[in-house]
Amino acid sequence: MDEDFFTEDPIAVASALAARLAENAVERDRAGGHAAAEREWIRESGLLTLSIPAEFGGQGGSWSKVYQVIRILARADSALAHVFGFHHLQLAGILLYGSPQQQRRLLTETVEQRLFWGNALNPLDKRTMAADARNGFELNGLKSFASGSVGSDWLTLSAWHASTQSALIAVLPTRQEGIRVQADWDAFGQRQTDSGNVSFNGVRLPSELVLQAPGQAPTPRATLRSQVAQLIMANLYLGIGEGAFEAARAYTNDEARPWFQSGVPAASDDPLVQHRYGQLWTLLRPAQVLADFAAQELDRVFAQGEHVSARTRGELAVTVAEAKVLAHKAGVEISSQLFELTGARSTSAKYGFDRYWRNVRVHTLHDPIDYKYRDLGRYALQGTLPEPTAYS
Amino acid sequence: MDEDFFTEDPIAVASALAARLAENAVERDRAGGHAAAEREWIRESGLLTLSIPAEFGGQGGSWSKVYQVIRILARADSALAHVFGFHHLQLAGILLYGSPQQQRRLLTETVEQRLFWGNALNPLDKRTMAADARNGFELNGLKSFASGSVGSDWLTLSAWHASTQSALIAVLPTRQEGIRVQADWDAFGQRQTDSGNVSFNGVRLPSELVLQAPGQAPTPRATLRSQVAQLIMANLYLGIGEGAFEAARAYTNDEARPWFQSGVPAASDDPLVQHRYGQLWTLLRPAQVLADFAAQELDRVFAQGEHVSARTRGELAVTVAEAKVLAHKAGVEISSQLFELTGARSTSAKYGFDRYWRNVRVHTLHDPIDYKYRDLGRYALQGTLPEPTAYS
Amino acid sequence: MDEDFFTEDPIAVASALAARLAENAVERDRAGGHAAAEREWIRESGLLTLSIPAEFGGQGGSWSKVYQVIRILARADSALAHVFGFHHLQLAGILLYGSPQQQRRLLTETVEQRLFWGNALNPLDKRTMAADARNGFELNGLKSFASGSVGSDWLTLSAWHASTQSALIAVLPTRQEGIRVQADWDAFGQRQTDSGNVSFNGVRLPSELVLQAPGQAPTPRATLRSQVAQLIMANLYLGIGEGAFEAARAYTNDEARPWFQSGVPAASDDPLVQHRYGQLWTLLRPAQVLADFAAQELDRVFAQGEHVSARTRGELAVTVAEAKVLAHKAGVEISSQLFELTGARSTSAKYGFDRYWRNVRVHTLHDPIDYKYRDLGRYALQGTLPEPTAYS
Amino acid sequence: MDEDFFTEDPIAVASALAARLAENAVERDRAGGHAAAEREWIRESGLLTLSIPAEFGGQGGSWSKVYQVIRILARADSALAHVFGFHHLQLAGILLYGSPQQQRRLLTETVEQRLFWGNALNPLDKRTMAADARNGFELNGLKSFASGSVGSDWLTLSAWHASTQSALIAVLPTRQEGIRVQADWDAFGQRQTDSGNVSFNGVRLPSELVLQAPGQAPTPRATLRSQVAQLIMANLYLGIGEGAFEAARAYTNDEARPWFQSGVPAASDDPLVQHRYGQLWTLLRPAQVLADFAAQELDRVFAQGEHVSARTRGELAVTVAEAKVLAHKAGVEISSQLFELTGARSTSAKYGFDRYWRNVRVHTLHDPIDYKYRDLGRYALQGTLPEPTAYS
Repeated sequence: MDEDFFTEDPIAVASALAARLAENAVERDRAGGHAAAEREWIRESGLLTLSIPAEFGGQGGSWSKVYQVIRILARADSALAHVFGFHHLQLAGILLYGSPQQQRRLLTETVEQRLFWGNALNPLDKRTMAADARNGFELNGLKSFASGSVGSDWLTLSAWHASTQSALIAVLPTRQEGIRVQADWDAFGQRQTDSGNVSFNGVRLPSELVLQAPGQAPTPRATLRSQVAQLIMANLYLGIGEGAFEAARAYTNDEARPWFQSGVPAASDDPLVQHRYGQLWTLLRPAQVLADFAAQELDRVFAQGEHVSARTRGELAVTVAEAKVLAHKAGVEISSQLFELTGARSTSAKYGFDRYWRNVRVHTLHDPIDYKYRDLGRYALQGTLPEPTAYS
Repeated sequence: MDEDFFTEDPIAVASALAARLAENAVERDRAGGHAAAEREWIRESGLLTLSIPAEFGGQGGSWSKVYQVIRILARADSALAHVFGFHHLQLAGILLYGSPQQQRRLLTETVEQRLFWGNALNPLDKRTMAADARNGFELNGLKSFASGSVGSDWLTLSAWHASTQSALIAVLPTRQEGIRVQADWDAFGQRQTDSGNVSFNGVRLPSELVLQAPGQAPTPRATLRSQVAQLIMANLYLGIGEGAFEAARAYTNDEARPWFQSGVPAASDDPLVQHRYGQLWTLLRPAQVLADFAAQELDRVFAQGEHVSARTRGELAVTVAEAKVLAHKAGVEISSQLFELTGARSTSAKYGFDRYWRNVRVHTLHDPIDYKYRDLGRYALQGTLPEPTAYS
Repeated sequence: MDEDFFTEDPIAVASALAARLAENAVERDRAGGHAAAEREWIRESGLLTLSIPAEFGGQGGSWSKVYQVIRILARADSALAHVFGFHHLQLAGILLYGSPQQQRRLLTETVEQRLFWGNALNPLDKRTMAADARNGFELNGLKSFASGSVGSDWLTLSAWHASTQSALIAVLPTRQEGIRVQADWDAFGQRQTDSGNVSFNGVRLPSELVLQAPGQAPTPRATLRSQVAQLIMANLYLGIGEGAFEAARAYTNDEARPWFQSGVPAASDDPLVQHRYGQLWTLLRPAQVLADFAAQELDRVFAQGEHVSARTRGELAVTVAEAKVLAHKAGVEISSQLFELTGARSTSAKYGFDRYWRNVRVHTLHDPIDYKYRDLGRYALQGTLPEPTAYS
Repeated sequence: MDEDFFTEDPIAVASALAARLAENAVERDRAGGHAAAEREWIRESGLLTLSIPAEFGGQGGSWSKVYQVIRILARADSALAHVFGFHHLQLAGILLYGSPQQQRRLLTETVEQRLFWGNALNPLDKRTMAADARNGFELNGLKSFASGSVGSDWLTLSAWHASTQSALIAVLPTRQEGIRVQADWDAFGQRQTDSGNVSFNGVRLPSELVLQAPGQAPTPRATLRSQVAQLIMANLYLGIGEGAFEAARAYTNDEARPWFQSGVPAASDDPLVQHRYGQLWTLLRPAQVLADFAAQELDRVFAQGEHVSARTRGELAVTVAEAKVLAHKAGVEISSQLFELTGARSTSAKYGFDRYWRNVRVHTLHDPIDYKYRDLGRYALQGTLPEPTAYS
């Protein structure tokens, strides 16, 4: 790593990286699969240490900064932005669940060895079982939606522990014997997120790599992990929405023709076009402002350390849910409606404009928006805070 | 052709054909290109003669019937439904613009030789020029968005005639010397509609194949062609919306899992799921009812022959615009929102559920919805009838 | 009654009556209370016999015709249209629940004595109790939302019968001893619907005036009453929406000024104004078409008499629910959004344009739209027919 | 004024004032007219000096603080909140247009004499003419929409100056000879805003009371006045939306009954109710956050004094427009949709819940939302800043 590295502004680094990713993003979306070379570009950018505290050799960036970077990358390539974001989500998990020793070891190694983290943690998929074994556990079974697993160095994982009827959370090197990462992700969007299945076959998990033991109730602070995750989602949706908006804007200005009945010399002079752009803008801007506000709140609460109360955590979850719902709607609506503004010729595969909708459509299904509305409604009605889960 | 053919109900024939098309629709959507074999299935179904009057040997089906068939096919495969619909649009052009002799010759040949029609008529693309020549014209230039051109037997075309500053409309065999049909359609949806470019290089166009001579003003009746076309669009959008709705419904019933916080045993028992299905249903049903109503109106006006007045034509155009706007919104919204109901696992490429949105999104850009709203607003405000154009 | 009466077209009669009601509708809305004189105009119009079969001396009009009249009246005065509609709803109840003898007696008297019917039937209000008494029952208690009760000649009523844990449905003359009609309706809309409370104090109810005895399960045909009612609602909402749309249209054409930045000579030339009118139009038109379609279906099913099956009844309920939801949305949206088109000066009390929203807003709360969406969603998902209740 | 006055927190003062206004707000809305006593309460609260810089004896509150107070008052009584807000708008005009001498004199007198300001400034109404006269002008004509004029001590006014074809802006004591304030405001909402007509009959306007002379182009800073005004609007809409939301919430919790088909013990337990509250919440929250953000921006730009550039002013106008559009939509939607959640019984006049819609509906017509969308669209498309006008 370059000695001057930390003098570089991560936003500038992210912008340069995004520009590079944009060059072949359309082609790679079409091809799908694992973006090995581009993941190396991310590694080389140094941004994998952005969220790691300076005491472990990282850049000590705030979550606000991480989210800004995610959004910048997502404008160009939301699949790799996802992989990037989920790397930092795993690091958040170590900070929130790990012991001081685990934090020091894992995060220092992440900086020194330039590790890239993936996950096999899907809490709704209970097919991976943890059996008690000497000095740890033995893992067997399958995990789906393991974003970032292909090409990762380490994994965060969860496994179901039958005797306590609870899940453990742990980390393991991806190359641990018995782990098989399957490059079988085949969704119609977010195609290069390496989000397929991971199988465990007699995998040894030593106790010192367990972040949360079976039966151990997480502290309010530990449950911030789902808020870090939800806000990664929101910023991904938002970055896609921003990318789609900018693509439409450039097309309208540079390539679109005015409709023959419009009586104006350029598409951008058409009052109906301007009006619809204004409507999309009023979807995008609030989502941006609320996402930024939620990120500041997350930073504030994260900094409270072990003093985070259930109330503080719950109010943060409300703020994050607001941001996520707005980003969801902005992303889906802008990426679909933009075509009303750009017209038939903009559907040529050479532009790849459909990838915005496909990407945001797949990604916004992480957890149902209708349950976010329900959570917000409960809070608005009676002040009920969202139940701390992996999704709220 | 089987002697008993006309005893078959076209709806039953269409349903069987749709079932056959559905079998590999997902794969063909992925592959794109020309569906040579499947177009032969359409030809063999006999449905290419559906709109041809009985006096020319056709089935004499109403436009309502043609639209029903389009919708049935579009539920399964909206690209081939488009090719099918545009075949009948070309036949409508012959009925509306052609002389009695042209009608007899071209429609009889269509029945006897089982011809498949395509088009090179895009009125907004004025790059194909018609120069006066002995007993006709010589054509040179290019036409884009020539749906159904690849694999067609005959083409309807338009060409710009400089000296009269007007367009002629004509027909030609696709294999006429100098015509080159380019299989270069590359949109992200409606991928097998063969809607690429057609080039004309010194093509001889004899007078007897000109349906509308340069400078000749169309009668109100002739301008019904755009209404036939707009209602083909509406039924395509609607068929896609119906297909998407049915796909979602089946998935929710058969494969979806209830959200872990829902407290219900099946996704279909979730009040929030039921409510959203109800909302999508109230997008779909009105679009169906208005499309059927508009088709009946079209049949009624079509039957008036040369007595169609400008007012009757204009009021029909309003009715068709209402149906098209509703079908547009139903198609786009249902194909995008269905995923809120089916969830993350439904995005697997094996289902191909994204094709509904891609198909309807591409197809709904034929002409801008905001100008339909403008036309309807003008009518609602002051009774102004839509200007007869190729799109209204 | 004028001998030539039945030669008059009810639509023409309704239009004339609506014009007369319109003259002081704004003032009466402001005043609220009982519209004694105007109710006499309705009585004098002869339209109170519209739904009564010819065999009982009525006009034998279809429900489609009744709904058309309701809509015409509601454009001008939705409160009196409501009173008119509910009169016919009570007649429907007699046709659906009453014995042949009851039908003959009550409907013949309605024609001969020019009776005006009201109700005290609110099925959700169980405060009126029926106790067994000699040759009948004794009624005690209160009923709310008793539309049309003030100034009525007869009432349909329901009462809770404790020993069978069920409700009876009956009719009584409004002046029956012990009945007190309270002119205490004070909602902010539909102000002249006389929808206040009715109290029963030791009221004798003879058996021959009981339409449905306690514990008696209604036939599928009898449960059509709620469909007649729901479609009265839909047509009232729709009439209000039509009235609001027409008021806005006339104002835009005759009084509105173009916005100073619009660059057009008249408000009606502004593309943004035209576009928004087009959007409102696409709310109104489908609601009209679906309401008409549902009315035809109701007429068809009503004519089946005792042969109405649960399935037929349920499918009708779906069709009616579709129409009601669309009318609800059209009414509420148009009556609120119209002001975006007419501007600040149109809020002067002299126009009374707010009454459209107030009227439709109050009336659309008869039963919750979200449960209609739920019912439609259940049907769409699994073919489940709406449960026959007083509201579905 | 109490010596300790400035030690009181204006938010606490506003909350107490709002609670007092709330007590009879429903009755006063019904009565309409001039709220003389309640305007005295406002005067006595001391909040009329909130925006006046400390150097003139005022409280030196930020615009953010003023807007918070407006919102608090508007929750309870949006008419008096309007009168309050427009008082401060007139003070803003003096700060932005007035000479140092004018500022000192007028603002000091406002503090010392506890003046209440109104306006007669409507820039779209050009019926008031200013003719040159000795040491000033003579005013003749009419001004409409003169909010706060009745009961005011001083007025800001505009008048058309024919020879320069431009408007002057000036101040005058309301009791100046020839000025007649007409208590003729009759809109269906914001009924106690005293927004009727003001007539000028040979009114002498001395030069020293002219803030902007005819033909004088305003500086970018001076044009901030319209931004102060637009953000008053936004906060009024928002306060109404907040008041409506809170009214609905309390009703649902305390009075609403669960729908009989819901299967839940309380309305607030109904998933469909919770979901819809969540949707309304996601209208309200972004509007709040964007309004607060815009207020901070306004404070920042206001503090730049004469250094405000056209670009800075334009970007502020974009931010304010975003906030205003969101507040507009939140206010109108929440005040209309709340009834879906509270149901039929909540329409009783005793609750006065319709006043939220009536108030926000009237007030949101100050200038057309569709031109805000157009302005935002132009900015989003090409970076075009809104033209500085009285509305943008």
